[in-house]
Amino acid sequence: MKLLVANANTTEAITELCAAAARGAAAAGTEIIPATPRFGPAVISTRAENIIAGHALLELLAEHAGRVDGVLLAVSHDTALEAARQMLPCPVVGMTEAACFAACLIGGRFGLMTFGSTETYRERIAQYGLASRLAGLASVAATPQEAVRDPDGVARKLRAGLGALVAQGADAVVLGGAALAGMAPKLQPDSLVPLLDGMACGVGLLEMLVRLQLPKPQGGSYAAAQGREVGGVAPALAALLRGG
Amino acid sequence: MKLLVANANTTEAITELCAAAARGAAAAGTEIIPATPRFGPAVISTRAENIIAGHALLELLAEHAGRVDGVLLAVSHDTALEAARQMLPCPVVGMTEAACFAACLIGGRFGLMTFGSTETYRERIAQYGLASRLAGLASVAATPQEAVRDPDGVARKLRAGLGALVAQGADAVVLGGAALAGMAPKLQPDSLVPLLDGMACGVGLLEMLVRLQLPKPQGGSYAAAQGREVGGVAPALAALLRGG
Amino acid sequence: MKLLVANANTTEAITELCAAAARGAAAAGTEIIPATPRFGPAVISTRAENIIAGHALLELLAEHAGRVDGVLLAVSHDTALEAARQMLPCPVVGMTEAACFAACLIGGRFGLMTFGSTETYRERIAQYGLASRLAGLASVAATPQEAVRDPDGVARKLRAGLGALVAQGADAVVLGGAALAGMAPKLQPDSLVPLLDGMACGVGLLEMLVRLQLPKPQGGSYAAAQGREVGGVAPALAALLRGG
Amino acid sequence: MKLLVANANTTEAITELCAAAARGAAAAGTEIIPATPRFGPAVISTRAENIIAGHALLELLAEHAGRVDGVLLAVSHDTALEAARQMLPCPVVGMTEAACFAACLIGGRFGLMTFGSTETYRERIAQYGLASRLAGLASVAATPQEAVRDPDGVARKLRAGLGALVAQGADAVVLGGAALAGMAPKLQPDSLVPLLDGMACGVGLLEMLVRLQLPKPQGGSYAAAQGREVGGVAPALAALLRGG
Amino acid sequence: MKLLVANANTTEAITELCAAAARGAAAAGTEIIPATPRFGPAVISTRAENIIAGHALLELLAEHAGRVDGVLLAVSHDTALEAARQMLPCPVVGMTEAACFAACLIGGRFGLMTFGSTETYRERIAQYGLASRLAGLASVAATPQEAVRDPDGVARKLRAGLGALVAQGADAVVLGGAALAGMAPKLQPDSLVPLLDGMACGVGLLEMLVRLQLPKPQGGSYAAAQGREVGGVAPALAALLRGG
Amino acid sequence: MKLLVANANTTEAITELCAAAARGAAAAGTEIIPATPRFGPAVISTRAENIIAGHALLELLAEHAGRVDGVLLAVSHDTALEAARQMLPCPVVGMTEAACFAACLIGGRFGLMTFGSTETYRERIAQYGLASRLAGLASVAATPQEAVRDPDGVARKLRAGLGALVAQGADAVVLGGAALAGMAPKLQPDSLVPLLDGMACGVGLLEMLVRLQLPKPQGGSYAAAQGREVGGVAPALAALLRGG
Repeated sequence: MKLLVANANTTEAITELCAAAARGAAAAGTEIIPATPRFGPAVISTRAENIIAGHALLELLAEHAGRVDGVLLAVSHDTALEAARQMLPCPVVGMTEAACFAACLIGGRFGLMTFGSTETYRERIAQYGLASRLAGLASVAATPQEAVRDPDGVARKLRAGLGALVAQGADAVVLGGAALAGMAPKLQPDSLVPLLDGMACGVGLLEMLVRLQLPKPQGGSYAAAQGREVGGVAPALAALLRGG
Repeated sequence: MKLLVANANTTEAITELCAAAARGAAAAGTEIIPATPRFGPAVISTRAENIIAGHALLELLAEHAGRVDGVLLAVSHDTALEAARQMLPCPVVGMTEAACFAACLIGGRFGLMTFGSTETYRERIAQYGLASRLAGLASVAATPQEAVRDPDGVARKLRAGLGALVAQGADAVVLGGAALAGMAPKLQPDSLVPLLDGMACGVGLLEMLVRLQLPKPQGGSYAAAQGREVGGVAPALAALLRGG
Repeated sequence: MKLLVANANTTEAITELCAAAARGAAAAGTEIIPATPRFGPAVISTRAENIIAGHALLELLAEHAGRVDGVLLAVSHDTALEAARQMLPCPVVGMTEAACFAACLIGGRFGLMTFGSTETYRERIAQYGLASRLAGLASVAATPQEAVRDPDGVARKLRAGLGALVAQGADAVVLGGAALAGMAPKLQPDSLVPLLDGMACGVGLLEMLVRLQLPKPQGGSYAAAQGREVGGVAPALAALLRGG
Repeated sequence: MKLLVANANTTEAITELCAAAARGAAAAGTEIIPATPRFGPAVISTRAENIIAGHALLELLAEHAGRVDGVLLAVSHDTALEAARQMLPCPVVGMTEAACFAACLIGGRFGLMTFGSTETYRERIAQYGLASRLAGLASVAATPQEAVRDPDGVARKLRAGLGALVAQGADAVVLGGAALAGMAPKLQPDSLVPLLDGMACGVGLLEMLVRLQLPKPQGGSYAAAQGREVGGVAPALAALLRGG
Repeated sequence: MKLLVANANTTEAITELCAAAARGAAAAGTEIIPATPRFGPAVISTRAENIIAGHALLELLAEHAGRVDGVLLAVSHDTALEAARQMLPCPVVGMTEAACFAACLIGGRFGLMTFGSTETYRERIAQYGLASRLAGLASVAATPQEAVRDPDGVARKLRAGLGALVAQGADAVVLGGAALAGMAPKLQPDSLVPLLDGMACGVGLLEMLVRLQLPKPQGGSYAAAQGREVGGVAPALAALLRGG
Repeated sequence: MKLLVANANTTEAITELCAAAARGAAAAGTEIIPATPRFGPAVISTRAENIIAGHALLELLAEHAGRVDGVLLAVSHDTALEAARQMLPCPVVGMTEAACFAACLIGGRFGLMTFGSTETYRERIAQYGLASRLAGLASVAATPQEAVRDPDGVARKLRAGLGALVAQGADAVVLGGAALAGMAPKLQPDSLVPLLDGMACGVGLLEMLVRLQLPKPQGGSYAAAQGREVGGVAPALAALLRGG
């Protein structure tokens, strides 16, 4: 099966990092197709960038619609996840969503570590309905760029936060941040509880969903768009929303 | 004070309808400035359109940033509300957000009536933290276009749903839908409980926030963007996110 | 419009402090009418005092019913708020309620600082349905009386708590305590996030509600009392509940 | 032990009905002392009456403070419960609170049947933290006065609502309304699930609490009032709040 | 009345400790019958032991079914509580459940102290619907065995944790652990808030329930088993589930 | 990889039905090993049977511990799921848990259809933290035995309930009941939204978890049992809990 690993920011290095993590986790026969948007933020850090990146991502996805079997969002904010899920004919999973749901399958409550502000992750997890399964959030004093440039240094900083999350009751810890893709194995030996990589979890969940061969909803709030008129956007995106 | 009434779809008739409702509710001395995005959906109906409209809206807002005292989103999905709030130096309020919070000030639980699927409204209200104050949601079998074209016919359909919401415990009912802006007075005589118009509520809330002269947060998750690099977007938007 | 600023304790100095804060925030043309109950606690500190003060407040409000356009409760416990809201023909807002809802319009989660025990504020915020938007509560080691007597000393104590609330994720901080009315500007320069004054917020919300000219509910749980027989209370209060 | 059965409205017939139900449920050696307030509503139906009744009740309780071993509120709104609990040196239980907690001990979710609006009961149950254990609320088209005057007629009306609550998942049903005290045995034969009488449950819970001989809290938000100055209230009430 | 005090682990010393605490709290005329399972864990510490103990407990209860008036589970995990409640013709209460519900009757939020991991208690309390009334959980570095062997030493360790729970807002503290049965009086002098013993609370709640003489549910999810075929279990248990 | 499909009741026909559904969903190279407990209920219908079945299941799992790569519980109550997860060195997933989490990946809220009482499913879903994502529960008037004997007749009954769940907002529907394993394809053509089979979902989730090669937690509440003494149980189970 063909899985699109779609970044929502324009930093190709992050796309490559995520695609590599996805390939490492994919089953034999699963092809990973990396993709990076044409426009938008270099790195998503504010809410506005996340919206712009959402448009860029939808444009990117529309180009691939019908040519891939599933989409994994390689962006830790799970940018435009619900929109992509409704719009596309194939399954879509977000990398943080994937890791959070996987965490629920191996313990009681989980923690999440990320860069910078934790509030948007708290909000995302609440939107997933998992607030009662969140033991805590920890922020590491580093940037996504630093994680790509100096993974060992960032790993050292992450280790310090793991103990605090376990003490708060975390039975597993999600590494939240596309720039941390593939870092779980480095950190795992120092952690009492399993560490979850969004790309690895996401590939597994997508493979499951693709194999389930579920039909696209014909009703409810995730039924595909039909006859929508959207102007000034890329032709593929406009066409997909117009349907027919 | 100058308040921008910003639609997130490209239908000027909706912008005008909302601006008229806003003007009708504004204090003397409040100037209402209507604005419509350059691109995006004619009417927002799916989640993908809402994301695209979010980008279009942020572009529109960036052009007005620093030149208005507050922004009222004239779109019932409160599209990109949190993003606009963090990005802009002035207060931003969403029309449905406004009506829901106003409803909380006049009774216990409230209901919401809208066109089509109610699920995205349920999700929005949960994001506002108000799930426990929602008595019910009702959908009216009409379209936003129909409300503009045949307001009396749509008003008849809306009346039928009001009683059901009161029976579910609603002490007030929010009219959810930009195309319903200004319709509350028509329906009010037939309702046991107050009906809330998002534009009227939003203007009032914005006037309050503007007069409070609160500083822009310097910390927390709503601090303004600084030094963000966003490519391929309108210059005003890129400049605002770059800051400085 | 005429707004009653109604204290629920018998300390006139607090009433005056609150009325001054309300006047400072009111629109041109808004008249602020201060009022203090005839009986009850000097300062509300326990739950029993809050109930007694509620009766005293309702008596006070009944005297003004029909002669004011709105009521702002100048008591941080929002004493008897729901009762007053149902009983009166005009809008009623509580000062802490006002600040909490305003806080929701400018950020994600908010904090609250007050004197003494924070538990009753936690309960109030949960009753408003806003538990998920509360980042934390902080208590300052001072008394309301001290705030009136030595505002600068109390301001110093409050500053220390602000940082802790921001660290817990607060995007705004509510100053909870009628004796803190008007203190926000003093503290604002030392705070990374906006500080919210209940009186200023409450005046703005009331002005919005009054201008909306919403009808009194004829059904639901906030419909006005009719034909209620209440003995041994002030004639105006008995008459208002008897209705007709 | 001496248990005060304290009505919060001034209708002696209700007090007697409740006291009789309490006596029927009390252990040998438990003395039931009925008490009715000096002032306030004949029957509590609106939120304002509930606040006034709260003051009247606290006055009544202050007269008995130190002379009874426990207090059972014979009012289905559990009027001023938390205030009485903090103020008095002995345990205090509300009749609806008692029935709701008892219901939790015999099944999963429970229902509640009452007269008139169910919203204030929904709010009360949420305040008790039991929202997730509430299967549904049902309203019977009768008045408390009618229940005293024509218990058989009201029993017929109540039967009709029981099935609906069981269908909603109720494993037990609380009869909410002081005027329904003692009615459970009449209705029980027609109900698939146990019916709970607040007075019977409340007497049992109080007997437990009294026998536990727990100390009055010296800290936290339920520590007794000390040195509070409250003017214009009954001397016993003022003295109790002044303490010492 | 006859109350079975049923341990779910096989340590007789714990059964005796709990039975003694129950006897100390029981009304005159209440007979306490201790019982210990035939098989299962010596002490329950993991989730698997809790399930096995649940089976052992149900077997034990089936032997006593119809010969006791109520059952108090003398195991702090409230092992198989809901199963026992549905299966037996008489009321069943868990010791931690009892203490938590009692705590709700004397204050706002409560804390819980126990040995080892607090997560399973957090989960239990959430299942009871009381998550919003939980102020905090504290773990004491000791084992149940140590509490039986060296109660004074364990009491010293417990004291240290009490202050932290009060600081988190606890108005009462539940001692969670069958091995702590009877220890509350020792610790009470050092605590600002009441300490709750599950056995004492449970006896009181059971006495209330037994005296209420509620019928066994004939419908809903707690109706007794009828005609169930269960193989390979003790004859009394198989017979009880077969019914008839 | 070897996946154990473990029934928790003793009806081999159900085990076979579930194993067949699992095989149909498994990746090439995944071996499905069916297993049925030695003792316990023929079909689980009451809470007591669920506990007994839990013990029987743990005994069964202990025999296979270390010889399989993952365990899928072929019982719709997800019997003893958390206990098995903590006890075993390999991943464990419940069939209803699997379908509910999968449902969250394809839409907003989901519904669940099952036989008999829906309350225990509601409780299970709340334990998973997914209460806010549950749109509704529907019960079909049939028995598990009937589903095995007359799948077409039961399918007809199930169809009727699907529309109601979609009307309540379900974007997907979980078929809850081991006896419904494999029935989704039959019903799918009649459903507007995707239908989820717990066995198919569970196999996919397990394959993901096994491939993630997560370590067993060394801390937190899911760390494996060590040195536990459990008497009177099967030797393999006792040995596994003793560890070492």
